[in-house]
Amino acid sequence: MTKLIDAYNQASYPLVGHGKRNANVLKEVFEAVDGSLESDMYGTGKVIEDYQEKMANLLGKESAVFFPSGTMAGQIALRIWSDRKQNKKVAYHPTCHLEIHEKDGLKELHHLEPILLADMTRPVLLQDLLNLKEDVACILLELPQREIGGQLPEYSELEAMSAFCRERGIKLHLDGARLFEVLPYYGKSANEVCALFDSVYISVYKGIGGIAGAILAGDGDFTEESKIWKRRHGGDLISLYPYILAADYYMERRLPLMDKYYKEAVELAAYYNGCHNIKTSPAVPVCNMFHVHSDVGKEELERTFAEIALQTGVGLTSSVRERDDGGSNFEISIGDRYGFAPREAVTEAFRLLDLKLCEVKVKG
Amino acid sequence: MTKLIDAYNQASYPLVGHGKRNANVLKEVFEAVDGSLESDMYGTGKVIEDYQEKMANLLGKESAVFFPSGTMAGQIALRIWSDRKQNKKVAYHPTCHLEIHEKDGLKELHHLEPILLADMTRPVLLQDLLNLKEDVACILLELPQREIGGQLPEYSELEAMSAFCRERGIKLHLDGARLFEVLPYYGKSANEVCALFDSVYISVYKGIGGIAGAILAGDGDFTEESKIWKRRHGGDLISLYPYILAADYYMERRLPLMDKYYKEAVELAAYYNGCHNIKTSPAVPVCNMFHVHSDVGKEELERTFAEIALQTGVGLTSSVRERDDGGSNFEISIGDRYGFAPREAVTEAFRLLDLKLCEVKVKG
Repeated sequence: MTKLIDAYNQASYPLVGHGKRNANVLKEVFEAVDGSLESDMYGTGKVIEDYQEKMANLLGKESAVFFPSGTMAGQIALRIWSDRKQNKKVAYHPTCHLEIHEKDGLKELHHLEPILLADMTRPVLLQDLLNLKEDVACILLELPQREIGGQLPEYSELEAMSAFCRERGIKLHLDGARLFEVLPYYGKSANEVCALFDSVYISVYKGIGGIAGAILAGDGDFTEESKIWKRRHGGDLISLYPYILAADYYMERRLPLMDKYYKEAVELAAYYNGCHNIKTSPAVPVCNMFHVHSDVGKEELERTFAEIALQTGVGLTSSVRERDDGGSNFEISIGDRYGFAPREAVTEAFRLLDLKLCEVKVKG
Repeated sequence: MTKLIDAYNQASYPLVGHGKRNANVLKEVFEAVDGSLESDMYGTGKVIEDYQEKMANLLGKESAVFFPSGTMAGQIALRIWSDRKQNKKVAYHPTCHLEIHEKDGLKELHHLEPILLADMTRPVLLQDLLNLKEDVACILLELPQREIGGQLPEYSELEAMSAFCRERGIKLHLDGARLFEVLPYYGKSANEVCALFDSVYISVYKGIGGIAGAILAGDGDFTEESKIWKRRHGGDLISLYPYILAADYYMERRLPLMDKYYKEAVELAAYYNGCHNIKTSPAVPVCNMFHVHSDVGKEELERTFAEIALQTGVGLTSSVRERDDGGSNFEISIGDRYGFAPREAVTEAFRLLDLKLCEVKVKG
């Protein structure tokens, strides 16, 4: 039997993301780059300074710094706010990247003490801030909350949380790894959303589809301090231009497409929700991503998706995760690829999916 | 008057390094790369695993890990050894990169307590280890000691220090940013030198001339632990292939040239030492680098080198640093460029330099 990942990779119409993460991503960028363009040099030089200025303007912040990773940028932001308030407590969602994907760097390197807000069913809301029993230096909000399907608080809720933090002197940090992806739903500019936050991190390889890297933005004194920590972390590389030029190149091409990706995610989620025994979270996506859940087990679902890919040429997902309760789920994020798939092929793939999932139920 | 940096950049024969650090360094590498080559993925995948295995073999260690920077690799190595010994004390030279170039990351992030060995006139020797009054978890040796002109202990001294550390249960870490550059002088393989150390860091953008990055090598359990810290530091990037492929490409081309660079450094130092009022440290280089010192002031020397570049087309240095005593110095490292300069042009440049430095003295 063909493995799901192989079936997906051979499919004519894989529906997830922008495309393969291979050397062509870099080669396409550098074909248009003049070879005499000088490298950045330990955080200085035209190539990095120009991009940082562009991003500061786009985000409506005084200053921005390019980091090799969001892990580094996020920890550093929280450390700076913690030092300023002389308070090691920070607060964020239980699925925050810093809590579950960074081997506890925040605790092991910076000795910060996170307090968890909200739960697995929803993003952080004003009620969580009102219920906070301890004084914290900083609150981190992730927009969208990736690990629970890319959920968002309503914009008015966001404004209320921002006002609450300002009033209490709590710094508000944005994990905006996918910030540009949520702007169409909010109907706001990056500037407007970022104005609610004291510091902002964005990723350049999610919706933007660059190679690696991140931006940390805020006031000038905040970003200057972040550069010191960037050096301490070992992130002040002699040359970051491969990532910077790719970020700039793909940002120019894809920022205008965020609304398209969002609408396609809504469309694709409706396809899933039209099938038996499977549903999306959120039911209606609020950005280009969502999660798909099923009570059908991982292996059964993998076999089903592999068959559909082989029969229709449509790759719905490349992997399925097992849920604790025996069910399964997977993540969908929409990029360039979805738009290349003919409507009929997608419709046929979901007709088959519904059929197979009904059969599974009968069998089970 | 033309500034030295401009005169140097316009010179037909700049003598320092491999060449301009511009986008061509990357473009040359990727012209030969198949666009379908898959990216590494958070430290996994063929492109990173193959290179790590190659480097482990080259260095004679069980395992190797690619890091975005030496700053990150070095701090992590010392942290691991410190944790193992439950001793926060480590020892290194006063000019160690961790002490003077990393904004105290070792202290601020890892809370290690360095003890300084030897002084500005010489590298660390066995006598310094014998005189150590405190128990330390780890000793770091930098080969060559860059900030004092690239000096080396004799190989027998190195063997004695290694034996001393093994006997006392002190871990020995190699800052081998320029390890390959010292092998011709020692007449040893990388394998032989690295066997004296418990852990080894090498840079891929000094003599090798890559874009950025570093290798940390050692036993398998050591490198596995280093990957956890790499994640914590924010160095476990989704894609490091731009740096890895460049490292591999230029390493293949330049490792065979290290002996040539070394001999050219000896030759170039002799040119300097043949002039009045200027001398090199060390007097006879032991690798591809050395420092040039003069009692003549920085501005005077900059003017002199700018004039020579304009008159002869030979760029001797692009910058001069002021010394505390009013004299000045600068660093020379030999790469591809020196070999492109015609002997007559170099000879003429040094004839002029001697002449001008004699005049300077008369004036002074």
